[in-house]
Amino acid sequence: MMMTFDIQQPDNSIAKRLEDKINDLAKPKGSLGTLEELAFQTGLIQQTLTPALRKPVNVIYAADHGIADEGVSKSPKEVTRQVIHNFLNGGAGVCFLARQHGFKLKIVDSGVDFDFPPLPELINRKIRKGTRNFRYEAAMTQEEMEQAVRSGAEVVEECYRNGSNVISFGEMGIGNTAASSMWMTCLTNIPLIECVGAGSGLDSEGVRHKYTVLKEALDHYQGSREVLPVMQYFGGYEMVMAVGGMLKAAELKMVILIDGFIMTNCILAASLLYPEVLSYCIFGHCGDEAGHKRLLDSLGARPLLHLGLRLGEGSGAICAYPIVESAVRMINEMHTFSQATVTKYF
Amino acid sequence: MMMTFDIQQPDNSIAKRLEDKINDLAKPKGSLGTLEELAFQTGLIQQTLTPALRKPVNVIYAADHGIADEGVSKSPKEVTRQVIHNFLNGGAGVCFLARQHGFKLKIVDSGVDFDFPPLPELINRKIRKGTRNFRYEAAMTQEEMEQAVRSGAEVVEECYRNGSNVISFGEMGIGNTAASSMWMTCLTNIPLIECVGAGSGLDSEGVRHKYTVLKEALDHYQGSREVLPVMQYFGGYEMVMAVGGMLKAAELKMVILIDGFIMTNCILAASLLYPEVLSYCIFGHCGDEAGHKRLLDSLGARPLLHLGLRLGEGSGAICAYPIVESAVRMINEMHTFSQATVTKYF
Repeated sequence: MMMTFDIQQPDNSIAKRLEDKINDLAKPKGSLGTLEELAFQTGLIQQTLTPALRKPVNVIYAADHGIADEGVSKSPKEVTRQVIHNFLNGGAGVCFLARQHGFKLKIVDSGVDFDFPPLPELINRKIRKGTRNFRYEAAMTQEEMEQAVRSGAEVVEECYRNGSNVISFGEMGIGNTAASSMWMTCLTNIPLIECVGAGSGLDSEGVRHKYTVLKEALDHYQGSREVLPVMQYFGGYEMVMAVGGMLKAAELKMVILIDGFIMTNCILAASLLYPEVLSYCIFGHCGDEAGHKRLLDSLGARPLLHLGLRLGEGSGAICAYPIVESAVRMINEMHTFSQATVTKYF
Repeated sequence: MMMTFDIQQPDNSIAKRLEDKINDLAKPKGSLGTLEELAFQTGLIQQTLTPALRKPVNVIYAADHGIADEGVSKSPKEVTRQVIHNFLNGGAGVCFLARQHGFKLKIVDSGVDFDFPPLPELINRKIRKGTRNFRYEAAMTQEEMEQAVRSGAEVVEECYRNGSNVISFGEMGIGNTAASSMWMTCLTNIPLIECVGAGSGLDSEGVRHKYTVLKEALDHYQGSREVLPVMQYFGGYEMVMAVGGMLKAAELKMVILIDGFIMTNCILAASLLYPEVLSYCIFGHCGDEAGHKRLLDSLGARPLLHLGLRLGEGSGAICAYPIVESAVRMINEMHTFSQATVTKYF
């Protein structure tokens, strides 16, 4: 059975006091722009005038995709497991960012097509060794999807129990921009052609091939454009787990940092199930993947950074974290006009 | 006599090795976007494949402006000295950012219209108690301008001697967006109307008044549109000191972080004197002040952040610093394809 979540809109009764506090800080009103908005949002989420970010964690769900057999990615499937080893060795892209900003990394095997030896740092939630190829059949069964939502949520619940109140999500899985394009076109009705991009580095011929494969899959698909059937049919396991993780994080009133194209598709799906989830989200980054900006616009999201990243793994979300930290410091550490004895003309 | 600077373009012979190193890191080529560009730039500036950022410092030059008597700012002149006290007390906007990112603050009295008691943390370089009112006369004499360039440079040299190799610049001075608008229109030939904005928070009537005053001053100005006469005529002392500071920082091959509208005008002026200075600059932030984006475009600059800040003080530059740090970590800490045993397909 599909897990349910109890996600509440943050109580708005504190909003006026938050605004007043921010406006009374000794600076021209509004002059700290986005920092002021983020301070307001974190205060609202945490229902306090003194928000705090504790034990940030980046959960990376990893899985393989049957669609990768169709040559829709520049990288072969084996790269999924290789990069997981690089996560665990501390050498991957996301690792230096996590060290820099004090994030704990949680690497989850959601469905990698490889038998890992027992690795203490790899959380085993493997559902299957990769999804089925959605060119021909559903990526996963309904039971697998439900299990993925639960597993994703359970990983987040453990982070919360360990004291985290801020979480970002990332992913690793060769083929997952292809799956994401299918989610995007089905869930937003934006034409597929505008949802397909270069992924980890296809050239224009590669993008054309990817589009052709995906178009065929879309034409072949008989299911509805409701969110659950779309998630199930196109997968992958890591993306469905991220949906479950995001929903659980919102239920637990955690601050959620959203990464790039794939994670933005996951929050789109999550928000179609529970619109309130968006109140807990801070969008970290708009990347170069075709369609990401359009997707963010459709969510009304204004990402903090535009750094041309297309690595995934949560990298764009973690890069944006110091800005959220700045906002929290602002509301806690800046002096008010009266404390600072600055004339409140401005 | 005007101080001269020996600013060299970084030696490009290391460029190929820097590119190779960045491309051999275990990630899809180019997938770390701007971080890759920043790693390349810092490596080039420091002439090393292992760049490092040491003892970041934010220098804030502060001064008053005669033009403030014309009601071109929402804030009265006394706010300049009040905010300086708030800098020294740790309660100002820039203070929490400096603490967050490990910046030392250097507050320089370049020409504040106030007699401070001796304050150990306030560097006294006061040239005069505020510039003259450029609606009627030159803001400063040539000797004062030359002294300001020297003083600005000396403060930076001291930072360098104390071990800093990365520096940002900020300013405090009621009226300095007015002076900046004059620099911008004179030095870029962009019409004044496109160079005038709300500063610390003027309403549209206030902006109209500011424009009227500045247009009159511009019509009255008989000097040339060369950079030195413009700097001298329109001031202020803090801005001229920043020009000297930026030039000295480039001479010393420091990484220079550029803040908002005012500091962007200063680097524009600096680059008209010594074009090579731009090789050392990283643009932190594009703010909301009218004309800032246009000014950045005219410099070919692509700022790292767009956070709607309009505080000055170096705040936008310091906010961007963790991204530069990420770039340096990337090139030093990420594993290569062979170290990571990741198939180099991508």
